[in-house]
Order: sequence, then structure tokens, then C-alpha cells
Amino acid sequence: MRIALGLQYDGSPYSGWQSQLSKNTVQDVLEKAITDFIGSKDLLALPIRVVTAGRTDTGVHALGQVVHFDAPVERESFSWVRGVNAFLPDSIVINWAKPVSGEFSARFSAFERTYIYALHAGPCRSPMSALRAGYVMLPEARWFDIEAMQLAAECLIGEHDFTSFRSAECQSKSPVKTLYACEIVSQAPWLYFKIRGNAFLHHMVRNLIGCFLAVGTGKQTSEWMKVVLDARDRSIAAPTFSPDGLYLTKIAYPAEFAIPEPALQNSWLPYSLLGPH
Amino acid sequence: MRIALGLQYDGSPYSGWQSQLSKNTVQDVLEKAITDFIGSKDLLALPIRVVTAGRTDTGVHALGQVVHFDAPVERESFSWVRGVNAFLPDSIVINWAKPVSGEFSARFSAFERTYIYALHAGPCRSPMSALRAGYVMLPEARWFDIEAMQLAAECLIGEHDFTSFRSAECQSKSPVKTLYACEIVSQAPWLYFKIRGNAFLHHMVRNLIGCFLAVGTGKQTSEWMKVVLDARDRSIAAPTFSPDGLYLTKIAYPAEFAIPEPALQNSWLPYSLLGPH
Repeated sequence: MRIALGLQYDGSPYSGWQSQLSKNTVQDVLEKAITDFIGSKDLLALPIRVVTAGRTDTGVHALGQVVHFDAPVERESFSWVRGVNAFLPDSIVINWAKPVSGEFSARFSAFERTYIYALHAGPCRSPMSALRAGYVMLPEARWFDIEAMQLAAECLIGEHDFTSFRSAECQSKSPVKTLYACEIVSQAPWLYFKIRGNAFLHHMVRNLIGCFLAVGTGKQTSEWMKVVLDARDRSIAAPTFSPDGLYLTKIAYPAEFAIPEPALQNSWLPYSLLGPH
Repeated sequence: MRIALGLQYDGSPYSGWQSQLSKNTVQDVLEKAITDFIGSKDLLALPIRVVTAGRTDTGVHALGQVVHFDAPVERESFSWVRGVNAFLPDSIVINWAKPVSGEFSARFSAFERTYIYALHAGPCRSPMSALRAGYVMLPEARWFDIEAMQLAAECLIGEHDFTSFRSAECQSKSPVKTLYACEIVSQAPWLYFKIRGNAFLHHMVRNLIGCFLAVGTGKQTSEWMKVVLDARDRSIAAPTFSPDGLYLTKIAYPAEFAIPEPALQNSWLPYSLLGPH
């Protein structure tokens, strides 16, 4: 039976999502917890392998991650949630479990992903949001040029070749992706970016944030974003910004799969900002 | 010259405020950072000792802590902020520094302290707020009886002997303290307690929270809080609740000292809840 899981995690202690020899990844820890929950009497069917919607990078968090796996045993949905959570550390939590048809793939059925980037800016760091928000040192009474960043965002909407925002290690078949929306919400000393697209290249959101901040701090004009996009050349964009404030907040699937909404209200991000997705 | 400092810290990695042989306390780390900033040429005047307004316990956070120390050297205020911050880990941040008269004591001049307790409740933990909020497992669609908790709070306001809420290790001369206010704010799945008093006994806020939750979950009636208070007996109160969600948010001083407001907007707590203090 195929089971879909919705999960949240603090990415700061992990080397990203994808399984590695070190085993210090969200995927490794989750697969081990599922395997431990199923228990030794079903060892022939193990180890469990999960498929994810979004392979988050080192230090990147998730509030609405979705995965699926093929379960060798039958359990009630609430039992998958409570049982696997009992084997997970505090940094990873399963919010829901749901049996799905064999046609469902957490990865290939997804048609839209939403990321939020949370940034703190001001003269002093915020200790409670270390590893939970990006940080830019700004002098007292200075703030970003929000309008310039919003103008810069316009050229990104739609289908484009995002090569300029792609890391060298990106495994995506094509650099052409579609951005549906890019909202910039200013609540000083906090700044939030909410970016929605069909799919994202490796480091794409962090590279976009780096460029937005170059515009917002006046190092570049808003027109510069289009110059970067059109260049299809990573070397002219701003440096990749910190993973600390990046959250995968929602994966959208066709309604027929009836995938539950993410439990975004469980996060520290202002809920008014998060919904509706 | 006497210097007052305003600081914030994530208490989760520390064994509380007060200096210990282990040196893993906020006081030890702060004193070492100040000493390192002043530098070796002033070694005769070292080590620096700081006096605090509120000796927070292991795992307790501060958003508006105030300390003072007698500086053996002269520095500009901004230089104390930037300079000492350069020697502090991400978990401790100085927000402001200010020269004060020798009559000012961070501890003895304070006439009021405010704590906020942040609690998350629901069927699943929240990974981003592990060690940053308390947690109570509640089934889906269940919530606390807010009215019962608010009723229970009424008997606590004013001057009382708080022996029932005092830990055995408390060093306070008297168990008689005055509570000025106790607000309970419900924003499901979050619950916030904002408690203001002239001073607090050891574990007093955490013991109060334990009792509030006994009332809020229906284990006790709201009248029970007065029974506990009147008993002056720690053994009849609820167990001490977790330090994870406890924040020292403000210390109030006479206006003549012109002590700056804490930078509460730098925290993850909803600002609408925090102000005005």
C-alpha cells in the first residue's frame, strides 16, 4: 500500500534531504524511523525508501514537505503518524499520513512548489532566529527599498531559462522553469519572500534572494534583475544567500489525490503571511 | 564608568545565567566576551564581573535582559555593542549599551519584571519551535479552557506569599511578591502567558504555568489555583513546567535612568502580543 506523509523539519542539523553515506540527512533519518516502526518481523520488506517532492539543501527547512513510500504492512493513518514520530528526533515531525493510489508520486504528481524566505535585518542579530532566518546587518533606521525589489520581481514571473540562478551541481534536465508568483512582504525588522513555481533549480531561491538583496540595498537597480536573467550566466548574479531562512512551505498536487494542507500554523512564521497558499 | 547593557539570548545551550565552574552559563560567556573586547593591555582591571536584573534558569531565554558592569576603560556606546558582539556566539546578542550613574544597579534598581511563556499545543510537535516553546500534546480540535485559566489567574494578582510556586533551591529572602498582571492570549495552536510582577521566586513562572495547564486541560477547576496559593505548600501544586517556552521580556527601571526599551520586535513572538509592556 502506498502511503503519503506530510512532514516538517528543522533543516539546520542536517546535510540536506538526500540520502548520503554519512546518514546525516532528513531522508536517512526518516527512512530509519519508518523502518524501526515497522519492526523486525517484516525485515524482508526492508529497508524502506521514500520519494520526496522537494530535495531540500543543507540547512533548508520544510513546513509542508510531502513524501511517499510503499508500505509492506498495513497500519491506520494515525498509527503511521504517532508511530513514526515516536522514532523521530524533535527536529523532524510527521503531521499527517494518508493511503494513496499507486499512481501518486510525491515527486512527479506535484505541479507547484512554494518556498518562503524569512530574513531578519537590523543593527544586531536575533539569537532566537539564528539558523531560522537569514540575516543582513543594516544600520538603525535604514530599511530595504521594497518597491525596487517588487519591480525587480516582475521580470521573473512566467516561463524563463533560469540558468543565471542555477548552481553548478544542479541535476535538473532543463533550466527552464515557470514562476507563478513572487511576493515580498516587509514587516521590519523582518522581510519575507514567498515564491511559487512549478519547480526550482538547485540553489535557485537562494540565488534569487541574493539578487533581491543587491537591489533592495541599492547595490543594483531593479532593471539589473532582467539583465541577470537574460544573461543565462551564473557568474553575473549575486552570491548564493544563506540557507538559514529558507522554508519549503507547500507542494501542490491535483485535487483528485486529496493531499492535506500543510500545518503551517505550527511554524513561527506569521500565519497571516502564509495563507492562503 | 558604569555601563548598562541590554541583551537577548537563546538559553537552550546554557546552564542558566549564573556563573558556574563549568563556564557554560550566559554570565560566563558574556563576561569573557567583555574581557576579550577590552583586551590585554588593561589586564590589571580584569576580569569583568556583570550584575544582572534576572538570573534566568537553565534553558530559559531572554529578550530584554539588562546587566551592568564597571568598565575599566572608556568606549563609545556603539563600540561596546559592536565590539562585545564580535566576541559573542550567535546565541547571545547585545542590543544596546549606555553609560549610567554609579547609583544604577541592574538588579536593585529594577522594580518590575515581565516574562512571557510561549506554548505550542496540538497533535504533533513543531520542529522549528523545539527548545523555543513549551509543548502540550492535544488531540485534533481540542483546545484549552481559556476562560477557566483567566479566572484562575485573578487570585494571583496583588501581593501574596508564593511559597506554593517556589522551588526548594530558591535563594530569595522572602516568598512574598507582587504580581501586577497575568494575561493569557490564545492564538491556536499557540498559547501565550504574559506575567508581570515586582520580582519572581525560583521556578515561580514555570510552576504557575504547570498549574494553569492543569486548569486549562480540565484536570483542576479554576478555584483550585487559590487553594494552591493559600496552602503555601509546593507539594500540592502541579509539576514545574518546561523552561523551553520561557522568555524574560522586560525589566522596568525608574525613568530617571532612561534605560532603553528591549528590542522585542527582533524575536519570533508575535509583536502585537508583546507591546506595550
